[in-house]
Amino acid sequence: MGKIITLMTDFGTRDHYVGVMKGVIASINPEAKVIDLCHEVPPQDLLRAAFMIRNSYPYFPPATVHVVVVDPGVGSARNPIIVEAREQLFIGPDNGVFSFIYAEEPRYLARKITNRELMLEPLSSTFHGRDVFSPAAARVSMGFDLGEVGPLIDSPVVLDIPRPRAVGNTLVGNIVHVDSFGNLVSNIGEELLPERPVVKISKVEIRGLRSSYSEAGKGEFLAIVGSAGFLEISLSGGSAAKALNLAEGLHRGVEVVVEAGD
Amino acid sequence: MGKIITLMTDFGTRDHYVGVMKGVIASINPEAKVIDLCHEVPPQDLLRAAFMIRNSYPYFPPATVHVVVVDPGVGSARNPIIVEAREQLFIGPDNGVFSFIYAEEPRYLARKITNRELMLEPLSSTFHGRDVFSPAAARVSMGFDLGEVGPLIDSPVVLDIPRPRAVGNTLVGNIVHVDSFGNLVSNIGEELLPERPVVKISKVEIRGLRSSYSEAGKGEFLAIVGSAGFLEISLSGGSAAKALNLAEGLHRGVEVVVEAGD
Amino acid sequence: MGKIITLMTDFGTRDHYVGVMKGVIASINPEAKVIDLCHEVPPQDLLRAAFMIRNSYPYFPPATVHVVVVDPGVGSARNPIIVEAREQLFIGPDNGVFSFIYAEEPRYLARKITNRELMLEPLSSTFHGRDVFSPAAARVSMGFDLGEVGPLIDSPVVLDIPRPRAVGNTLVGNIVHVDSFGNLVSNIGEELLPERPVVKISKVEIRGLRSSYSEAGKGEFLAIVGSAGFLEISLSGGSAAKALNLAEGLHRGVEVVVEAGD
Repeated sequence: MGKIITLMTDFGTRDHYVGVMKGVIASINPEAKVIDLCHEVPPQDLLRAAFMIRNSYPYFPPATVHVVVVDPGVGSARNPIIVEAREQLFIGPDNGVFSFIYAEEPRYLARKITNRELMLEPLSSTFHGRDVFSPAAARVSMGFDLGEVGPLIDSPVVLDIPRPRAVGNTLVGNIVHVDSFGNLVSNIGEELLPERPVVKISKVEIRGLRSSYSEAGKGEFLAIVGSAGFLEISLSGGSAAKALNLAEGLHRGVEVVVEAGD
Repeated sequence: MGKIITLMTDFGTRDHYVGVMKGVIASINPEAKVIDLCHEVPPQDLLRAAFMIRNSYPYFPPATVHVVVVDPGVGSARNPIIVEAREQLFIGPDNGVFSFIYAEEPRYLARKITNRELMLEPLSSTFHGRDVFSPAAARVSMGFDLGEVGPLIDSPVVLDIPRPRAVGNTLVGNIVHVDSFGNLVSNIGEELLPERPVVKISKVEIRGLRSSYSEAGKGEFLAIVGSAGFLEISLSGGSAAKALNLAEGLHRGVEVVVEAGD
Repeated sequence: MGKIITLMTDFGTRDHYVGVMKGVIASINPEAKVIDLCHEVPPQDLLRAAFMIRNSYPYFPPATVHVVVVDPGVGSARNPIIVEAREQLFIGPDNGVFSFIYAEEPRYLARKITNRELMLEPLSSTFHGRDVFSPAAARVSMGFDLGEVGPLIDSPVVLDIPRPRAVGNTLVGNIVHVDSFGNLVSNIGEELLPERPVVKISKVEIRGLRSSYSEAGKGEFLAIVGSAGFLEISLSGGSAAKALNLAEGLHRGVEVVVEAGD
């Protein structure tokens, strides 16, 4: 197994919690290389975490271990799991954060983590990032036998992910992510777009796709296929989220309508 | 000596200051593995830094070097120090940031850093994180003889740390930390709690301890022993700090009263 | 070539973008040591990025590769470039982010990156941090022949950097940076200051230079030569930026006047 361990949490950066997870990992596997994916997932926002890990893992080498700790049910009966998919490993709570992985790689294997060798002693009921997920990641990064982790599970929890739907000749999707530039990322994949789309969101109508931000004039809205392969709505030289009053958290449920132009 | 160096500062993440410290360390000891504990200590909040390093160091391996730069007196007569305790090293200004370490490990050794080999040349009076603490950490991580660092000091500065006190049959403690989930961390250690405590804070009264967040109904306040071993007050599915209007900085001096329930 | 790669972007820390860049780097050069300089450059603030990389690179060892991705023109005709200067390498868009480097090291060499071996396939038009700058940095950190990167360019883009100017007996400079402590960093280098300067900013007049923050009484404004060698205005025990209402972004164009005192 390789030695890269990535971390994604909703712990924020004002506390020492993430640093402590790295201490636990370094204590077990001093050779592990830890890479932060994001620690500012909005508290307990499973969908955002699921979306970000889906867009991140393809850029990591085989045998990378991805740890996602967005865990509103910490200490409850929800299971800690390890998922094998696409030659990488995913560790976190069984609450749907890996939903996109299951959808894109049907041959995944999910195991419940039950072996206490993978956990710290004593085991708290409030900080499994430190006591379960970090030590488990460190051990499997050193080649711990996955067969010894715990039993396979058949039906891990899957989030209710909004999918674009056809309504007559139009395609109706949703904004699923607002990035820090204020770009509005939809769930409409590039492959679903007509050749000359007309994109409508809020009161804005955009005709055609741009191939880069700079093709649009400053202050102009544009539609573009973003870096994750989805239709995005941007504002050249500004923040589309601000202009449309769709700050993070307010974007859920906002619809994007795509029609074929002429 | 080992090769892990942790960093905790109040430098924030909007500037290049922390990156420069890492450049200094890498220039001296390319093998050092630098781990960020936190860079968003509120400016000059010594108590918060002291609390966070106390809760972090036990999760790091022997010979880790912890650098804490929360340093309102930079450039003044305050001393830079290196403290040995529990097989780890602590480097920072002598202003009380290591108060909890002294209290928990009476056999600590504190040395004033006077040897100029441990400092950059020229030495600024405004950025000792770069010019003193980082090079000192890098050198000691490579095995620099601690006896050559500078003279031992007897009485390093100790913060006035609020301690819980018994008032008749009740225990009166304080909120010492608000984490980014809005959990209110008190200074009342698990060992001081009665079997069935009644916890009062502001106008809220909580009966009994929970063993995980999920035991309480959504929107319900709960008392729990947090991951650092202290009594915490949380709001299930929300932020106790917001609900009680105790944002970071406003929590100081807020009392928590614990009585024995029946 | 060495193995340190630094990253500076305006991507913020709420997204997974920086983590993905690190995945790309680790996939190509597992031995690279990535150091974050700053990811909170205000969106598209080239001058701030230029100033921060200028103040950072001298603290890194030879052969360090610095990647700066503040790139409002991503996907347009602007060129990606690699600059050699002072035994280090600088990679980013040709939009002026390396202006200070050119000014301080006239023997720099700038090359357009045209070799597709340095880029990911497919190449997006919206995320060159991932698809161009990261893989290029990883490859050159492994010794990729710089002569194969692409053609030398003569006149890379240079920002219009505000310079201090003499007006009679007074020196008029500008605030170019506000750090997270609220210190106001000017563009007036230490070497330009008279022996006993009188510094005026907004309605504040400060007589003389301090050699450390602690020399001034709490609540007092002070003038000091900061850690980057420029005149700074600070407020002892507080934030000069707040006191003068010069939050980040509002400081541009604010003048600092220096006269010789007696």
